[in-house]
Amino acid sequence: MQAWPEFVTVKEVGPRDGLQNESSHIPTNVKIEWINLLSEAGFISIEISSFVHPKWIPQLKDAKEVATAIRRNDQITYAALVPNKKGLEAAIETNVDEVAVFISASESHNQNNINKSIEQTYPVLREVVEEAKYHQKRVRGYLSTAFGCPYEGDVPIQQVIDVAARLLDMGIDEISFGDTIGVANPKQVDDMLTKIKQELDMERVAMHFHNTHGMALANVLVSLEHGVTTFDSSLGGLGGCPYAKGASGNLATDDLVHMLHQMGIETGIQEDRMREAASYIQEALGKPLPSHQMQVINRMKQGESL
Amino acid sequence: MQAWPEFVTVKEVGPRDGLQNESSHIPTNVKIEWINLLSEAGFISIEISSFVHPKWIPQLKDAKEVATAIRRNDQITYAALVPNKKGLEAAIETNVDEVAVFISASESHNQNNINKSIEQTYPVLREVVEEAKYHQKRVRGYLSTAFGCPYEGDVPIQQVIDVAARLLDMGIDEISFGDTIGVANPKQVDDMLTKIKQELDMERVAMHFHNTHGMALANVLVSLEHGVTTFDSSLGGLGGCPYAKGASGNLATDDLVHMLHQMGIETGIQEDRMREAASYIQEALGKPLPSHQMQVINRMKQGESL
Repeated sequence: MQAWPEFVTVKEVGPRDGLQNESSHIPTNVKIEWINLLSEAGFISIEISSFVHPKWIPQLKDAKEVATAIRRNDQITYAALVPNKKGLEAAIETNVDEVAVFISASESHNQNNINKSIEQTYPVLREVVEEAKYHQKRVRGYLSTAFGCPYEGDVPIQQVIDVAARLLDMGIDEISFGDTIGVANPKQVDDMLTKIKQELDMERVAMHFHNTHGMALANVLVSLEHGVTTFDSSLGGLGGCPYAKGASGNLATDDLVHMLHQMGIETGIQEDRMREAASYIQEALGKPLPSHQMQVINRMKQGESL
Repeated sequence: MQAWPEFVTVKEVGPRDGLQNESSHIPTNVKIEWINLLSEAGFISIEISSFVHPKWIPQLKDAKEVATAIRRNDQITYAALVPNKKGLEAAIETNVDEVAVFISASESHNQNNINKSIEQTYPVLREVVEEAKYHQKRVRGYLSTAFGCPYEGDVPIQQVIDVAARLLDMGIDEISFGDTIGVANPKQVDDMLTKIKQELDMERVAMHFHNTHGMALANVLVSLEHGVTTFDSSLGGLGGCPYAKGASGNLATDDLVHMLHQMGIETGIQEDRMREAASYIQEALGKPLPSHQMQVINRMKQGESL
């Protein structure tokens, strides 16, 4: 029989990673209300927005208003993405609990994404980390293309671990290994975590899977078997509609939480309240969310109205 | 690191389990051509139809024509579902290699499905098994509601195993444990297989998962870790459109095979030929198939035409 952890931290990234991939305009007050619903549903970690220049992500240009207007619960970690020191300063003004920086494990994706080599990115991140730590913020690092790169294909495991180690050495509290293009498979995750365990502190490892090929929950399962207890996901699969071109295919929080709870693993999240929060943002978007849980709910509603 | 098997037998049940859940009329010649494409793609086991009375499953009333007109490959096991001796006799006339009988692990589902108690069903099956064995047919048993019943909810593991043991004692070659309502979770599968290993011959155990809650591949993974090497699935997720009311949500063969191959597990199936076969039946149905692989392909096609 397998041994799985008893408690898992689900990091809800929908308000940032989900909404930045949606073309619909979502009014600021809707975002605020949605995050409030997430807080009430028992989420203990919510990434609420991104302090990236609005030129790059116009969907999240209201980061400051959102961050300052939400009802805070001091048991919850509210996080925001920051690309650099300027973004960090804006984030600090809003008093978020955690900031997240990002870098890629593959050279060409990093170059394409932030117009710097990996080596050139470290000093930028170090500056952000030092400043964030000075302000007593928790710092998270997103490590993109950890399981494959859209330009280079396979990314050697050692290369991924080396970048992660550099981030941890800077004082970053947690690394989120991102399956940016949704290609990770359970064997690859098993191989990666076998190596990560030898070189890094597992307490500081999180996984960020995409469900492009339907393997996200299988990848979660292997990760659980290796002792990973933090996973990123987006409520309703927001930001990854399966029928949209170029969908990122975020792992759906509601599918993840449902599986964990069915397995007897606790998250602190109330499933009914979580589904209410999902239905709320689904209505605001005006289109069905792609998670399995929402498909089941939407089918039941269709059935009721027949 | 985990140990997984090197080869997995994928039983393609789409022509039977998929099509019986589709309301579209599929012409007999299309079914025949589709099965021929599956044979050419390298599938080693295909359930081609059902010899159930057409009153119950009109979609498959052409079972005899299909079974006699397909191009046979003697390396492939062609199977058909049979409910009773009359169905068996029709199946034997067509010279299929394998027949499949069915029973439920829960009393009320069995009663509802075949209007008999479980105890009353055994003699019916025994008669079919004896006759099939006399004709040197392989016999498979579908054990429905093994992970949960729509009427009774939880089904005790011992009850599931007891029914399975009775079938194996009759001489049934393989039992397919069916997650009829799509509620199985990895812990439950782990618990079930831990017990099955103690009481049954694992060589004769197959798993039949539904992807209603997105957990099918995670359930496959746990099963692989226990040494299960036979899985049922339906190409493209046929018979389980996520947006259709009452969908069964069959695990999609293409998603299963993709994961297995990515993990380095062989199936004998050529993925490109398999996708061609999926596209063929998708076109015949005139609607997108719900598997992740087909969603990716359909998105790429959309992209090309933009």
